[in-house]
Amino acid sequence: MDDEKKAHSELGLPNPYLNSLDGDFLYHLGYSSLEARNGFTKDGVSHSFQDVKFVVMGGSSGRMRSFAEVIAREINHPVQTAEQLDIHRTDRYAFYKIGPVLSVSHGMGVPSITILLHEITKLLSYAGAKDAVLIRIGTSGGIGVPPGTVVITDKTFNGFLKEEHELVVLGERKVRPAVIDQELARAIQSSQSDARFQTVLGGTMCTDDFFEGQGRVDGAVCEHSDEQKMDFLRRAHSCGVVNIEMECTAMSSLCRLTGYKCAAVCVALLDRLKGDQVKIQEEEYKSFGMRPQSLVASFIKSRLSS
Amino acid sequence: MDDEKKAHSELGLPNPYLNSLDGDFLYHLGYSSLEARNGFTKDGVSHSFQDVKFVVMGGSSGRMRSFAEVIAREINHPVQTAEQLDIHRTDRYAFYKIGPVLSVSHGMGVPSITILLHEITKLLSYAGAKDAVLIRIGTSGGIGVPPGTVVITDKTFNGFLKEEHELVVLGERKVRPAVIDQELARAIQSSQSDARFQTVLGGTMCTDDFFEGQGRVDGAVCEHSDEQKMDFLRRAHSCGVVNIEMECTAMSSLCRLTGYKCAAVCVALLDRLKGDQVKIQEEEYKSFGMRPQSLVASFIKSRLSS
Repeated sequence: MDDEKKAHSELGLPNPYLNSLDGDFLYHLGYSSLEARNGFTKDGVSHSFQDVKFVVMGGSSGRMRSFAEVIAREINHPVQTAEQLDIHRTDRYAFYKIGPVLSVSHGMGVPSITILLHEITKLLSYAGAKDAVLIRIGTSGGIGVPPGTVVITDKTFNGFLKEEHELVVLGERKVRPAVIDQELARAIQSSQSDARFQTVLGGTMCTDDFFEGQGRVDGAVCEHSDEQKMDFLRRAHSCGVVNIEMECTAMSSLCRLTGYKCAAVCVALLDRLKGDQVKIQEEEYKSFGMRPQSLVASFIKSRLSS
Repeated sequence: MDDEKKAHSELGLPNPYLNSLDGDFLYHLGYSSLEARNGFTKDGVSHSFQDVKFVVMGGSSGRMRSFAEVIAREINHPVQTAEQLDIHRTDRYAFYKIGPVLSVSHGMGVPSITILLHEITKLLSYAGAKDAVLIRIGTSGGIGVPPGTVVITDKTFNGFLKEEHELVVLGERKVRPAVIDQELARAIQSSQSDARFQTVLGGTMCTDDFFEGQGRVDGAVCEHSDEQKMDFLRRAHSCGVVNIEMECTAMSSLCRLTGYKCAAVCVALLDRLKGDQVKIQEEEYKSFGMRPQSLVASFIKSRLSS
């Protein structure tokens, strides 16, 4: 109990109440603070979170399964199959551990990634992995960039085109700065080893919906005109927004508070200046989806070997 | 093309642009408007969405898999295994069809369920299943009710304790009424066949986060005090809130616009007036989780036989 208190007080997270928690169960991940600190056993093999250097996150569980195998190959991890790398305990998030890399799904949207970020930064902090870097790999709608372009986010904007993140706490609206690490973004871009696709550094807008929230006119409900949509997309583009997704301001604002560096690497599936529907052939979709994985794998490999 | 236009114009959804869409691909479900209207084939068997009367949704994919088998048994559906009932096409949402019932996961939070609601109401409308009822089954934090109580939502509140849903569209904040069907809520309550648990009709608060957004003091970040949390939870309770989850105002506001009736049936896993941590034994967790499934299965069975 004294040890638990001491560990909590050394966490460095901006929550004084963690000091007095008598054990912390990370409900959506299914791990306890004790396991984060002391390690856990799976199939008779001991594992620890202490060595984690990279947390790679993405919306889809299939993508994070794929990334687990990609990074295992890239870093010559002794275990290479997703089944053996799988450490998930709940069906809320897919969860793989590949040596110093965690590959985790975050679901879709701010609330889902927010829950993950609270729990994963506590897990890392309990484990003493304070220098870990968090990287989101995703899909997105581009603005003014060709489909297939990989956007490395250098600014995060909310739906009001402000570099802020809004949340409601105890009945009051809170507004937090949503600023992302520039150096990390550039380092990821410069680590590209596969020259078969374009990357750009650019602004990413985070919305709370895919249809109305991103100005689409093909949802079940639409109360604006196509002209109003185009005006807004052009306005966003003139602010430096080159792609739209649904998580980045939550990540940048929370990581700023918890002290973890983060990055967002998303491929654009379409150019929203040319339409709303995501109509893309299966093969191209798969190939586009691999690009952020390939880039982030190169980055991790270069960091681990430096 | 003319048929497509005619079908769209008969949709009854509040989006005039659907009339001029040249086919609509429901990207996150993986089905097209053509399949919604004409049916689809899986393993050589033809299926249609036209007969859908109930869409049951829940956050977790495992729960919706379980519900698929529960409802198959209850309604004596010829096919009873989840594998055979599975019609998912993407890893965004689990998706099962059991005769007139769809069992679909919606992930966690407003953005994730909003995407599903746009696509599923379009799917139902394209299929001509305009009378289908949407029911969310979930877990929640209770306020002033014992753990294990099943709350059937009769009012939906946002984090400001208003019966409203906020969204940001084209850079502007929109506020919509978040009102839920009273008759449907009462009908679900009165269909209870398993008397081993308590149900209550009550208010449900929807938040955009599990930690700060629900006033918890055990997240990675906490800028309020335990006393402020308790004051807010008591204030919410005095407004009629008996449980907190993360989807209901999105559902009630969107269903009001699209014309679909909806309900929320969530078990309370803990009483938030007594703490923040979800510490519950595996067996009890499973048994609590089955309660909304059991109640909604009874409701569907009674409706189908009446």
